[in-house]
Amino acid sequence: MSLTVVGSIAFDAVKTPFGERERMLGGAAVHFSLAASFFTEVRPVGPVGEDFGAEQFEVLERRGILTDDIERVDGGKSFFWRGRYDYDLNVAHTEDTQLGVFAEFEPKLSEQSRGADTLFLANIQPDLQRQVRAQCRQARLSGLDSMNLWIETAKESLLAAIAEIDCLVVNDAEIRQLTGEPNLARAARAVMDMGPRAVIAKQGEYGAALFTESGFFALPGFPLEDVRDPTGAGDSFAGGFVGYIDSQDGDLDEASLRRAMGYGTVLASFNVERFGTERVAELTREEIEERFAQLHAMTSFEPLPARAE
Amino acid sequence: MSLTVVGSIAFDAVKTPFGERERMLGGAAVHFSLAASFFTEVRPVGPVGEDFGAEQFEVLERRGILTDDIERVDGGKSFFWRGRYDYDLNVAHTEDTQLGVFAEFEPKLSEQSRGADTLFLANIQPDLQRQVRAQCRQARLSGLDSMNLWIETAKESLLAAIAEIDCLVVNDAEIRQLTGEPNLARAARAVMDMGPRAVIAKQGEYGAALFTESGFFALPGFPLEDVRDPTGAGDSFAGGFVGYIDSQDGDLDEASLRRAMGYGTVLASFNVERFGTERVAELTREEIEERFAQLHAMTSFEPLPARAE
Repeated sequence: MSLTVVGSIAFDAVKTPFGERERMLGGAAVHFSLAASFFTEVRPVGPVGEDFGAEQFEVLERRGILTDDIERVDGGKSFFWRGRYDYDLNVAHTEDTQLGVFAEFEPKLSEQSRGADTLFLANIQPDLQRQVRAQCRQARLSGLDSMNLWIETAKESLLAAIAEIDCLVVNDAEIRQLTGEPNLARAARAVMDMGPRAVIAKQGEYGAALFTESGFFALPGFPLEDVRDPTGAGDSFAGGFVGYIDSQDGDLDEASLRRAMGYGTVLASFNVERFGTERVAELTREEIEERFAQLHAMTSFEPLPARAE
Repeated sequence: MSLTVVGSIAFDAVKTPFGERERMLGGAAVHFSLAASFFTEVRPVGPVGEDFGAEQFEVLERRGILTDDIERVDGGKSFFWRGRYDYDLNVAHTEDTQLGVFAEFEPKLSEQSRGADTLFLANIQPDLQRQVRAQCRQARLSGLDSMNLWIETAKESLLAAIAEIDCLVVNDAEIRQLTGEPNLARAARAVMDMGPRAVIAKQGEYGAALFTESGFFALPGFPLEDVRDPTGAGDSFAGGFVGYIDSQDGDLDEASLRRAMGYGTVLASFNVERFGTERVAELTREEIEERFAQLHAMTSFEPLPARAE
């Protein structure tokens, strides 16, 4: 199985109440790829600048991520994001965004990345997402993430992109904003009417909900007493989710989708334990399976009948 | 088994995007009692005014609720709340609160309500909660709800009340505010250090989380496409939760607590389908069991190992 992901490959400056980093590896495609790498073969697609060096490539390659489609632009600067979180870690305050080499990015996928079984369009401008989708026609399964900025500034293009994919993975507020429907269950149904067969609503520390034609499923966030940096949690969720689905031949049957929700939840929870990619880069499959089993135990109950009065 | 609850017995005026009611039966003890009445014998304790008549008593008595401890004050007016919800149904905007007979309320429990197996102190001034707790010493299990107002204006008394009960059932924001700890898992542990053996964090449409010494459990809100009025959802949750626990001899074992979380979730979901008490007042135990089974199906997954790559 194989998985291609397009999205930002970046440097992040992040400050939270628990510490700060001035320049660390980040970006949606990076967090996604690291999480997915535990389940399948991943190829991130996207441009980086001259400032992106051996140290950064090594973090990816140590996890077996195939970096041939990361395009290093001579004289360019990598995408850069600076953000801050206060005590409410659900809210990121963006202080600076520098597109760098992403401003001129024209996706040109290699033959290998075009031939992937599964495609994920992480959060970038929706016209770019559509260009990548058009080059990757063979994918049996495709997913997409987006953000409020594109709903506000490029809605027509985003709706066209959504119509071409199988699985939408966004924050619940974005599903409401996209559809203009405040009720999440109705909003998810409105998205499915646009084309996708599955809609995942990411809900920060509250977890994530899955809507399909056949029903509803939800998991809480894994409870942690030490959350240091939520940056990339949503991308790690998507990477765990889509990576697991790809490893199961891309089947969107209900049982696989639910397990994939579990792996997404687990990867997101590891991601936030330390800054940036620090935790997931050194994670093991054994740790993932152990937490997956804990998550299962934390969400199971036995439906015995209540005693009649 | 038997359950005594003290809290507001009220009239509510509510406006939501889906309709409005000028004067309907409401109050924490009312919503709690109706929900709990499906599981056990319930006695609400509290004062009402002359405006509280046969029609209101009938709603309670049709559900088998024992109304002897509802004290009708001559010449008095019942507690009145006016509120409004916009499209974000998680946020209630209070427009008017009239304490009425609650301003002079001095709890005097009957012998029967003092002898209850289980006691629930719904959201009222914490000194009143403590007076009731002191009169109801035999209860094997006691729970308490509160709100931001009392954390801000009567914190010492509230902390003393919490130290005397087994189970705190409040909104997650209130657990954070009460403890000054932004991380929910740490905040819940801080509450358990004060005395309670179980802490339930109500999370609106996201569901509810349970913290005990032995672990963590969480359920999503039951997904509904038609939510008309969230007033009383938290009280209905508490009523379903505590009512079920009481029916199980007040055992706080993990399996019972988890099923109780399920029944709380189910009762809250029915409550919001129509205004005020309209839906729960006509609910059947069969409908409850059917939705409980659906909730179980919506939250179960099978932890098969992922395929190795």
